[in-house]
Amino acid sequence: MSKKKVVVSLGHDALGYTTGAQKDAVRVTARALADLVEADYQLTITHSNGPQVSMIHKAMTELRRVYTDYTPAPMCVCSAMSQGYVGYDIQNALRGELLGRGISRPVSTILTQVTVDPYDDAFYEPTKVIGRYMAREDAEMEIKKGNYVREYPGKGFRRVVAAPKPIDIVEIEAIRTLAEADQVVIACGGGGIPVIEQQRALKGASAVIEKDSIAGLLAAELGSDELIILTGVECVYRDFGTDRQTPIPSMTLGEVREAVAEGRFEAGTMLPKMEAAVTYLEKVPGGRVLITSMARVKDALMGRAGTVITV
Amino acid sequence: MSKKKVVVSLGHDALGYTTGAQKDAVRVTARALADLVEADYQLTITHSNGPQVSMIHKAMTELRRVYTDYTPAPMCVCSAMSQGYVGYDIQNALRGELLGRGISRPVSTILTQVTVDPYDDAFYEPTKVIGRYMAREDAEMEIKKGNYVREYPGKGFRRVVAAPKPIDIVEIEAIRTLAEADQVVIACGGGGIPVIEQQRALKGASAVIEKDSIAGLLAAELGSDELIILTGVECVYRDFGTDRQTPIPSMTLGEVREAVAEGRFEAGTMLPKMEAAVTYLEKVPGGRVLITSMARVKDALMGRAGTVITV
Repeated sequence: MSKKKVVVSLGHDALGYTTGAQKDAVRVTARALADLVEADYQLTITHSNGPQVSMIHKAMTELRRVYTDYTPAPMCVCSAMSQGYVGYDIQNALRGELLGRGISRPVSTILTQVTVDPYDDAFYEPTKVIGRYMAREDAEMEIKKGNYVREYPGKGFRRVVAAPKPIDIVEIEAIRTLAEADQVVIACGGGGIPVIEQQRALKGASAVIEKDSIAGLLAAELGSDELIILTGVECVYRDFGTDRQTPIPSMTLGEVREAVAEGRFEAGTMLPKMEAAVTYLEKVPGGRVLITSMARVKDALMGRAGTVITV
Repeated sequence: MSKKKVVVSLGHDALGYTTGAQKDAVRVTARALADLVEADYQLTITHSNGPQVSMIHKAMTELRRVYTDYTPAPMCVCSAMSQGYVGYDIQNALRGELLGRGISRPVSTILTQVTVDPYDDAFYEPTKVIGRYMAREDAEMEIKKGNYVREYPGKGFRRVVAAPKPIDIVEIEAIRTLAEADQVVIACGGGGIPVIEQQRALKGASAVIEKDSIAGLLAAELGSDELIILTGVECVYRDFGTDRQTPIPSMTLGEVREAVAEGRFEAGTMLPKMEAAVTYLEKVPGGRVLITSMARVKDALMGRAGTVITV
């Protein structure tokens, strides 16, 4: 296959926070993705699901409050539901956008589980902020249930869960088969449903896998030519958020490793993107990582925006 | 490929009605499915989702009651979520069961949309009963929302939705690609998410596609060697539910057509199975339909139970 294979990682901005907002947001996202298809890429798409899984989790909690005969829906079930929900909207919007450009290409979603290590340090110190701000009262209820919360002074509380490292993508063969048939695949939604191997069974874990971490692993496993991370900023910056903030147009793997070691990237936002770049480039030394925003992806493809990381 | 291709349609009994019951039920289901894999079949699995989509729909309604800033989740979104949820449990249970038998075979779920005709008669006369019994008060609320309900004297009310005929399986290419690679595929869950073509876009329809109807279409589209419908009864009966009830071990397509025309099968239960057999055998005249229960499928494969329909 001569086509370039790329894994695209979509952040929150690509999806919106409610069912209505998501439908509008994915239409814009679909245009950026269709640009990539037109640029002759075979796409495998991963996406975040924080707001979606949080919405579903809340809904299932309310359900139980009213209809007490339902058993609780664990986080892994909510995550599976969110993959169905987000995948449906993305595949639909992208299919329509492609048809509008005269391109008939199969687009589908593979429900994906990802194994994590039950002894991953992340379980002892949850760092991944999920869902929306809540009042102190709701926060206290979460703590009672054994969950972690973090306070944002003046804004409220948000839930914090463990973000263990992904080990294996359980459905990788199905994803690979579709990618090799030059189809567009949406997979590992929300980082994948985190599961722990227990003999032959896979047990859902109360955790969230960083969508960028899984994008790095997925690109490595598929031997992708590129990994494109679409996020809220148009490139990586030196001294981000300060007066001296300057764009970094390109970095080497060595420079990334150094910057990570020096703690120059923020946990939960830019750090997992850098770690994803490392995971991927270590496995695929000829690969290329592009970090940019949805709005600038077309320019970035022509070298006019974004940050490129290579070995 | 020398392996026999089969589409398996799973009914409610295969899944249970709550998250806890479903987990137990799919373990039993997984054994029957693994028996088929061991009998050297390539499986494409469809399943019902009535109780699941109803649970999700209720949950999303309760969510809106408490968190008023969420937009409503339409039926198609709930259906997509239910495919994620049920697919996750089936693929997980089947993978574990296969590993236990020393078989390593990729199992995955494809999120599936199915087009329906907006002018399908079904929209004018909803017949498909979904969800659980509800009290008069809840039934009246459904009617106010523009939904249909049916009263079951002494038992309560249940919701009734349109069950239009499936036209096209939107993600058929992805399903075919995985099936041809000898992977186990779960697709068209709950009959598929019913959508209506509006120019290039697909709009979710407020309807449910009979899982047996979609199984018939799926088997036809894939050119399956067999269509196996697993249901609550071990075979088709003449004079079902009367004193004269007698098992029918085999039928020809002609006999099925005749019995359907004479109205001998109940709408919503055996009728859609018969219609599925017709859809499939008309397209694949060398095919074979087997209708039996989960418990008897092994016996049925050896000709000791079930009803077989051929041209």
